[in-house]
Amino acid sequence: MTNNTTSKTAQLAAFASALRFEDIPEPVVRKIEDLLVDWFGSAVAGHGSRPVESITRFAQAMGAGEGPSEVIINRARTTPYLAAMANAAASHVAEQDDVHNGSVFHPATVVFPPAVAVAQALGASGQQLLAASVVGYEVGIRVGEFLGRSHYRVFHTTGTAGTLAAAAAVGHLLGLNAQQMQHALGSAGTQSAGLWEFLRTAADSKQLHTAHAAAAGLMSAYLAKDGFTGAAEILEGPQGMAVGMSSDADPSRLVDGLGTRWATAETSFKYHASCRHTHPAADALLHVMQTNGLKLDDLAQVVTHVHQGAIDVLGPVVQPTTVHQSKFSMGTVLALVAQHGHAGLTEFDRDFLSQQTQALRDKVSMVLDAEVDGAYPKRWIGKVTVTTTDGRVLHGRVDEPKGDPGNTLSRQEITDKALRLAAFSGGATPEAMRQSVDALWQVATWPKVGALLS
Amino acid sequence: MTNNTTSKTAQLAAFASALRFEDIPEPVVRKIEDLLVDWFGSAVAGHGSRPVESITRFAQAMGAGEGPSEVIINRARTTPYLAAMANAAASHVAEQDDVHNGSVFHPATVVFPPAVAVAQALGASGQQLLAASVVGYEVGIRVGEFLGRSHYRVFHTTGTAGTLAAAAAVGHLLGLNAQQMQHALGSAGTQSAGLWEFLRTAADSKQLHTAHAAAAGLMSAYLAKDGFTGAAEILEGPQGMAVGMSSDADPSRLVDGLGTRWATAETSFKYHASCRHTHPAADALLHVMQTNGLKLDDLAQVVTHVHQGAIDVLGPVVQPTTVHQSKFSMGTVLALVAQHGHAGLTEFDRDFLSQQTQALRDKVSMVLDAEVDGAYPKRWIGKVTVTTTDGRVLHGRVDEPKGDPGNTLSRQEITDKALRLAAFSGGATPEAMRQSVDALWQVATWPKVGALLS
Repeated sequence: MTNNTTSKTAQLAAFASALRFEDIPEPVVRKIEDLLVDWFGSAVAGHGSRPVESITRFAQAMGAGEGPSEVIINRARTTPYLAAMANAAASHVAEQDDVHNGSVFHPATVVFPPAVAVAQALGASGQQLLAASVVGYEVGIRVGEFLGRSHYRVFHTTGTAGTLAAAAAVGHLLGLNAQQMQHALGSAGTQSAGLWEFLRTAADSKQLHTAHAAAAGLMSAYLAKDGFTGAAEILEGPQGMAVGMSSDADPSRLVDGLGTRWATAETSFKYHASCRHTHPAADALLHVMQTNGLKLDDLAQVVTHVHQGAIDVLGPVVQPTTVHQSKFSMGTVLALVAQHGHAGLTEFDRDFLSQQTQALRDKVSMVLDAEVDGAYPKRWIGKVTVTTTDGRVLHGRVDEPKGDPGNTLSRQEITDKALRLAAFSGGATPEAMRQSVDALWQVATWPKVGALLS
Repeated sequence: MTNNTTSKTAQLAAFASALRFEDIPEPVVRKIEDLLVDWFGSAVAGHGSRPVESITRFAQAMGAGEGPSEVIINRARTTPYLAAMANAAASHVAEQDDVHNGSVFHPATVVFPPAVAVAQALGASGQQLLAASVVGYEVGIRVGEFLGRSHYRVFHTTGTAGTLAAAAAVGHLLGLNAQQMQHALGSAGTQSAGLWEFLRTAADSKQLHTAHAAAAGLMSAYLAKDGFTGAAEILEGPQGMAVGMSSDADPSRLVDGLGTRWATAETSFKYHASCRHTHPAADALLHVMQTNGLKLDDLAQVVTHVHQGAIDVLGPVVQPTTVHQSKFSMGTVLALVAQHGHAGLTEFDRDFLSQQTQALRDKVSMVLDAEVDGAYPKRWIGKVTVTTTDGRVLHGRVDEPKGDPGNTLSRQEITDKALRLAAFSGGATPEAMRQSVDALWQVATWPKVGALLS
């Protein structure tokens, strides 16, 4: 065993092991609370979704009928492993969970489900849950940044980096020391998986990716606690993740500002209920329409100026046939925004294939833009060129889409969003959801993490 | 949804769905029986192994305390998902399970654990188990061949292709139709994982890879049965496994001789208890020593002439510190063979660090050989050059190492090997193991698959 204690992976593991709640700056604590409540809404939103219910049925059939951890979509109880699996499947399906721009990684759906399930199993405090969640965010985001754009072209970073994020969060709750944490990351990285191929046929894999990441990451941490060892250099080693799954990995990102730069605080909330790659252009279109007083019928053509990642992910979706697929259709998203001023779950469900939506959808195109592509993924600039039916050519631009740190959601907006998500799915009554959200805002004072829905 | 029903993945799925026991030629049925009994010995051999016990503890803690499926190392019962996880971890640790040369893939450890666990859960017949197992072998081996040598340089093919093998075997038992089977392969492929990096620090990941493949593959098949969809072209698609995890994938291999060429029958048994990459050279050394009447003390230097894959996998292991790591040390394996005529579990445990072993180990080297490398992986030629202490230079060669189809094990040898493995681990008494093996040879007559160990 020749763990190199000064390697970047070792440094990342040491940070993940050692972070104390008291070390986390106050604004970052407030931010992780915001992210937790925002996530909770997305988890409840998974209720009734076919792929989510399917994974949940499997998890419950293969586990114990009881246990310390909560299955959020149906309030059953099971073991933390299977609860994490079910809740992670639930949290990503509404496409309303958070995103970190620089890593193109959705932390909440792979960090909170295992962290909450294990906190419930251990009777950990709210502060312990928050600290472990920050660890998951800091590790997962840095792994995503490390793996880079070449990775994201083929792999769903939330699934791949998410496995390590889940392991780090759970490992922190289990009190892993630095070496055990490095083993947990090794076991997580060697189970890291998730390919974008499913987009082409609108398959259900996105829910499987988050379920897999949460469950495999949790397992890695439990195994490490039990003495099970993993590769020391799973990220940077000559047969590790970077060599196998990336061609532009940047090791410096793994430890970039550890303990001083808080990646957690850089995380964005989603405002539109669609793939994040559509948001900058959607907000830019809104800006043009509001500034110029345009209505839907005024739009003859919309050219969106985008980064390559948007073309890679959204390009294959030309004529979406399911609601979920339509959230990856730039044309559909812009058509909904043009009609309603925003593209929420209700708008998608009702109008994703309406005649008006389809008409504008087919007038929207994407072109690669050097400025947007150069700024990405650190900044997600939105640029559109609109040609109106009376022949004007108008340009719209936003530098930070709604939900980004410089254009964030208030606690009231986060609460309202969570209530809307619960109402949409029927996963909780308005009263129960209100009560749970109110309680969850006080999580830092909880002596023990219990059920989130009573 | 645009499943291309004539794609190679679709053809593979259709084959996996449609194969009937009656379609399998008699010699292939006999071979899968041989492989099943051979696997059973390896599964029992996992008893008492630290990483195996660790994964089993996790599986049992996270599941139900009862269920229809057998945990072989401790005869507990649980759900098929968690039994498959535990038994797959158990079956690979002794490095005595089978291997298919052309794909460098170990089918038994990822096919039989999920197939047996699900057969027990469904009350399937012995013939159904055998047919499903053949499906797992045929699919997994072809996926391994498809992914190619570039994949194997970084990825542990048994973990990656194994996920699809497990899904196919379980899918067959669940009666998936062709389209459901294609969805199962899609879900399995997008969870496919396993990196060689763990070898560098002798970590426990190999057991995790097989556990992961069996469990994730089983889950994929159950989900498909429940209507959960996967990528249609997870293997060949532009964001699928080949693009993400290989640079020399050969799509023609996916359907090579489907239904006429039986890859199951090409599978080799392991004779030495070490990484298969060491076997050709070990047998070639034995041949030189027997032909020339050499003893250990006569060996001054041994140069092994090997394929690149052997250098990739064995090269990092210079001074092994654990028994498991020593099974990846060419020098250690040759030293044990030179002393004992074979390198079994007992020899490894007792002598892997003995002075005599270390002395010869350090006289063994590997060099890349064009002929051996060109024939690999279809044929595993063994070539050594021995310099004796009295100055002779002798050449040894074998064209098929012991256990290959042309130099196979008899049923008596398979039975004896299984009994030795059980005796070594203490996973079953000699009487119980004898009884179980005798019964297992009759599996084709079983109306229902029950516990393998009574």
